[in-house]
Amino acid sequence: MESTDRLSFSSDYMEGAHPAILKKLIETNMEKTAAYGADIYSESAREKIRKACNAPEADIFFLAGGTQANATMIDAMLRSYQGVIAAETGHIAAHEAGAIEFGGHKVLTLPQHNGKLAAADVENYIDSYYADKNHEHMLMPGMVYISQPTEQGTLYSLKELTDLSRVCRKNNTPLYMDGARLAYALACPENDVTLPQIAEYCDVFYIGGTKCGTLFGEAVVIPKHDFIPHIFTMIKQHGALLAKSRIAGIQFDVLFTDNIYDEIGRNAIETADRIRNALKEKGYTFAFHSPTNQLFVTLTKEKADELSRQVEMGFWENVDPDRVVMRIATSWATQKEDVDRLIGLL
Amino acid sequence: MESTDRLSFSSDYMEGAHPAILKKLIETNMEKTAAYGADIYSESAREKIRKACNAPEADIFFLAGGTQANATMIDAMLRSYQGVIAAETGHIAAHEAGAIEFGGHKVLTLPQHNGKLAAADVENYIDSYYADKNHEHMLMPGMVYISQPTEQGTLYSLKELTDLSRVCRKNNTPLYMDGARLAYALACPENDVTLPQIAEYCDVFYIGGTKCGTLFGEAVVIPKHDFIPHIFTMIKQHGALLAKSRIAGIQFDVLFTDNIYDEIGRNAIETADRIRNALKEKGYTFAFHSPTNQLFVTLTKEKADELSRQVEMGFWENVDPDRVVMRIATSWATQKEDVDRLIGLL
Amino acid sequence: MESTDRLSFSSDYMEGAHPAILKKLIETNMEKTAAYGADIYSESAREKIRKACNAPEADIFFLAGGTQANATMIDAMLRSYQGVIAAETGHIAAHEAGAIEFGGHKVLTLPQHNGKLAAADVENYIDSYYADKNHEHMLMPGMVYISQPTEQGTLYSLKELTDLSRVCRKNNTPLYMDGARLAYALACPENDVTLPQIAEYCDVFYIGGTKCGTLFGEAVVIPKHDFIPHIFTMIKQHGALLAKSRIAGIQFDVLFTDNIYDEIGRNAIETADRIRNALKEKGYTFAFHSPTNQLFVTLTKEKADELSRQVEMGFWENVDPDRVVMRIATSWATQKEDVDRLIGLL
Amino acid sequence: MESTDRLSFSSDYMEGAHPAILKKLIETNMEKTAAYGADIYSESAREKIRKACNAPEADIFFLAGGTQANATMIDAMLRSYQGVIAAETGHIAAHEAGAIEFGGHKVLTLPQHNGKLAAADVENYIDSYYADKNHEHMLMPGMVYISQPTEQGTLYSLKELTDLSRVCRKNNTPLYMDGARLAYALACPENDVTLPQIAEYCDVFYIGGTKCGTLFGEAVVIPKHDFIPHIFTMIKQHGALLAKSRIAGIQFDVLFTDNIYDEIGRNAIETADRIRNALKEKGYTFAFHSPTNQLFVTLTKEKADELSRQVEMGFWENVDPDRVVMRIATSWATQKEDVDRLIGLL
Repeated sequence: MESTDRLSFSSDYMEGAHPAILKKLIETNMEKTAAYGADIYSESAREKIRKACNAPEADIFFLAGGTQANATMIDAMLRSYQGVIAAETGHIAAHEAGAIEFGGHKVLTLPQHNGKLAAADVENYIDSYYADKNHEHMLMPGMVYISQPTEQGTLYSLKELTDLSRVCRKNNTPLYMDGARLAYALACPENDVTLPQIAEYCDVFYIGGTKCGTLFGEAVVIPKHDFIPHIFTMIKQHGALLAKSRIAGIQFDVLFTDNIYDEIGRNAIETADRIRNALKEKGYTFAFHSPTNQLFVTLTKEKADELSRQVEMGFWENVDPDRVVMRIATSWATQKEDVDRLIGLL
Repeated sequence: MESTDRLSFSSDYMEGAHPAILKKLIETNMEKTAAYGADIYSESAREKIRKACNAPEADIFFLAGGTQANATMIDAMLRSYQGVIAAETGHIAAHEAGAIEFGGHKVLTLPQHNGKLAAADVENYIDSYYADKNHEHMLMPGMVYISQPTEQGTLYSLKELTDLSRVCRKNNTPLYMDGARLAYALACPENDVTLPQIAEYCDVFYIGGTKCGTLFGEAVVIPKHDFIPHIFTMIKQHGALLAKSRIAGIQFDVLFTDNIYDEIGRNAIETADRIRNALKEKGYTFAFHSPTNQLFVTLTKEKADELSRQVEMGFWENVDPDRVVMRIATSWATQKEDVDRLIGLL
Repeated sequence: MESTDRLSFSSDYMEGAHPAILKKLIETNMEKTAAYGADIYSESAREKIRKACNAPEADIFFLAGGTQANATMIDAMLRSYQGVIAAETGHIAAHEAGAIEFGGHKVLTLPQHNGKLAAADVENYIDSYYADKNHEHMLMPGMVYISQPTEQGTLYSLKELTDLSRVCRKNNTPLYMDGARLAYALACPENDVTLPQIAEYCDVFYIGGTKCGTLFGEAVVIPKHDFIPHIFTMIKQHGALLAKSRIAGIQFDVLFTDNIYDEIGRNAIETADRIRNALKEKGYTFAFHSPTNQLFVTLTKEKADELSRQVEMGFWENVDPDRVVMRIATSWATQKEDVDRLIGLL
Repeated sequence: MESTDRLSFSSDYMEGAHPAILKKLIETNMEKTAAYGADIYSESAREKIRKACNAPEADIFFLAGGTQANATMIDAMLRSYQGVIAAETGHIAAHEAGAIEFGGHKVLTLPQHNGKLAAADVENYIDSYYADKNHEHMLMPGMVYISQPTEQGTLYSLKELTDLSRVCRKNNTPLYMDGARLAYALACPENDVTLPQIAEYCDVFYIGGTKCGTLFGEAVVIPKHDFIPHIFTMIKQHGALLAKSRIAGIQFDVLFTDNIYDEIGRNAIETADRIRNALKEKGYTFAFHSPTNQLFVTLTKEKADELSRQVEMGFWENVDPDRVVMRIATSWATQKEDVDRLIGLL
């Protein structure tokens, strides 16, 4: 099914794990540890993440994947009379197979601006809800969902994040950040939002592993201890509690040792930058201004077909009968030689 | 938190993975593969499992854990007007934190006989439902849940399984087997039920990985192709679709190569047998007759406290103010020296 | 389908409504009123119920039926990590077609004593939950469900109710009473629990209408204002918000005017007493000691068949191959002549 | 709260019931009938509706209200891997407090054209779903929701309905019609869709009662017998099964006797027409072209405030800082004198 000759830039989850993770899994393999998050490696990983986030009392849980993390945490944060605000292009609005609704919750969509929610739009929506004297007939906006980077690879600036956070806190509406590709945001030169700032301005977020160098796993961070009481039971109910928890714990313990999470992001950004510059030089245009590890390039169908014979890319959408948008993704594992070969083909 | 001196027989998921799994993960680590189950390793694993089960057209999915597998498959098999029959001691009735009900389904409990459902009880229940002219006011029995081995470590005989299957098929009520510890059933000398027979008599079952030598993962097997249409979408909705699916695929590919799954079971059974015989010789009694890898031994509280200082066991239940039942579990990873030390302490 | 000659004692919801209700519906028919509970008749009914319950700040909602009231209120009171404690014979455990589980909640069953929960059993259950150091793996007992009268027609005494209430409040576990047939409890000479005491010791309860003289409708009473925030939205979500709310409001306004609710109960109790005494005199025995409007009489199958030719009764259960339990129910509408005819046939 | 002097045109559910309904309720009040839909009046109503719809084998159920009917039937028709297509302005998308999502289902919104779904849009959406090779990652379009009249008071023509039906049947996607105000569509001169045609082209629909002259109640019609197996149990699970079913049955029995349902519609349409013509003559404009019983008139805020002192209307939306859209609704109960007074005030 896979060809070794054809280049592949279709996604950031095509390889296994960062070698340091495998090394640690082997070293610890025959140790006996406690289960369900009580093992020493999960605790060590939690401590390192708390330090990296400057959030010393954070509750941290390791879940298996992104849809699971989103569905579980949104379900845990909302009551049935509430919905979750998201950009119309947000991952949970467009690409989760109804997993949020399956849990009983409506996604309240607002317009997107470069893939992002605007604080003013959120404020207007919440204000309108409370201003309506019949608002008890409607779902209360119960939380706000964003992702960093967004579905279009764009970034919230620190100003945009703090504006959103201010609106959320004024209205007692928690702010949740999906960080499936967070390493690629943190490493981006355009980014001005640090992990401690995310922990300061978001009420819950997750640090992505699956797309950022682990075999699997996402680290859900709740900066304020016990912000979601009984979250453990709810994680179990969602089938999201890992029995052999140390496997996830070890992976995040490694990611947050010796700056490996930074290194993972850097490689993806540097290789994406080289491809982006080459595309620009050759006159290609982009559907979105994405400074991170995903490029959304507009191609004629002819060019797309020609390229696809030698490079696997992700299909994004049709622009018109003659043109398509294709996604090119880099990752922690992208090799410089492959980037050179790709540039040669453009 | 964990002590290296103290023996641990508390569960079968304390170590990492069978070394052959780690070896293969390393060998394949930098290959690029497709996602969401379309990778070559998942396909290879599926082929090997189909052969081992003599089920050439089986649909097979790799999920992360047992609660997830049970909740997802029960939800996929039932309509809202149906419930799932289980023994009152069945795992889904007693130990899933309401995960089945969270999905909207009632567990219809029947009496247990050595931890098992009796075909006659199931038949009576289904017959009573249909005989009641007001049965549309009640939940229809929509599937039957069993596990092999059971929550008490006991085994369904081939006769018991075929009797259940006959009742189920006569009533068009699918039979589902939870095989979280299936390796330890298959390797047990008392067992007379093979994988192909399970595939013949059950409509859906899963082959446990987490407790049988993998880092994580369970292989859900649906012997009849497309028996559950659109199961893929439902798996995704449950947050149970692994993006980097090859990680689970590789593990099951290894388990079903060179009889490793058999070997894993054998070690657990042999070590459990030695402990069981030692306990019997020393006059201990058991709460349940479990021939598999879990022993449920009745101890005075005094003895339990004394032993616990040197051996970690699982607390099962209080019998009376003076006596408790403790669980001793072996696994693929149990070392003969540890067994010797344990026997010396009894 | 119905015969005019045959007597009918099969249930307490066979007739229309108390004539005073119809009279008021006609008088008010062409008035224009606000909707969704904001009408003057609903407000008047709420005020009268608040007075009758001595609960001046109670929130009160009128829902259409009993299953709806139970499912909606249990869903509103529980979080997903909680279950509802009920007697194994409780209506929600045995007779709701999985409506509680459909809302995502597990019913945690305890043994019944004359159809009732014992405060000591509830206390033990809650204590065991909190004593278990792994309790976060299990559902928290989140509320307690009882009904007055019970499914077997029996009554909680004031002592039993206050004992339950004390256990519940000590553990911050709300107590909910299903009062589908509450009029028949309140009017019973054996009863020593008043409406104000119910409002004092229960956190939520409902005053039954459908079985106590209305066309339809149950009045949910929450004695402490805003005890369940946003309950209005949750009622709407459950499809339980009546647009033309005054129809329910008028009915309860009438029931709580001129002691009609008392009168309704009295007729049912007096007619039931006459039948009970006649049965006793003739040597019949009862399956349960029910002092209210439902009699559960044990009959030989021969006698049951003979009687059924002239009297419609409710089938309750088979005792053995020769005997059955049949239910005889009276109501606000039971006529003395019908009682005489029935007694003549016994 | 209500004033007798102020005119009220705020909605079509402000009065009680058509007098013929109350008359029949009184006549039958002390009869004893079977429950849960098995009574003779429900059966009589079903027979009359089957005849009116020319659907001799239709399954028919009487539910209490519109949100309940929509939530229950959508839940009964969809599997979890499916969503329901609706216009972005459809009632279930905009005005149900998340009741559809609460049942686990996503509303898949498409653009509206005069409040209506276009068959071509539905076809494109379904075709795109099946054309996408990754469609198993997305929700399948599982049914189509429309209402007649729409949320904007507009009507599907017979051509539009048959086009939608053709697309739906070609794709095995059931078509559901919400007929909360169906009487007002059927009586409208612009309407060319009859009840038998609705029964022919829709797979499930409901005939509205609450807004069309009953105390409460909607008649769900499933033209093809057993099209939704076990729907009875699902209705009960939703708390939507009326115990004293004859109350709903009697009301629909009356509505479908002596053309009362037609008469109800006619009065509303005639009075709406007079108001519409008066508004047009005086130069007012309308937000939507609605030929049925709801008028959506654009007013300056000044005029709206002035009018509101004497006439209660429904607020619909703000157009700009100076203008609002107000809803004026007529009904079966609208009096000609009130219409004259209203016209005098315009």
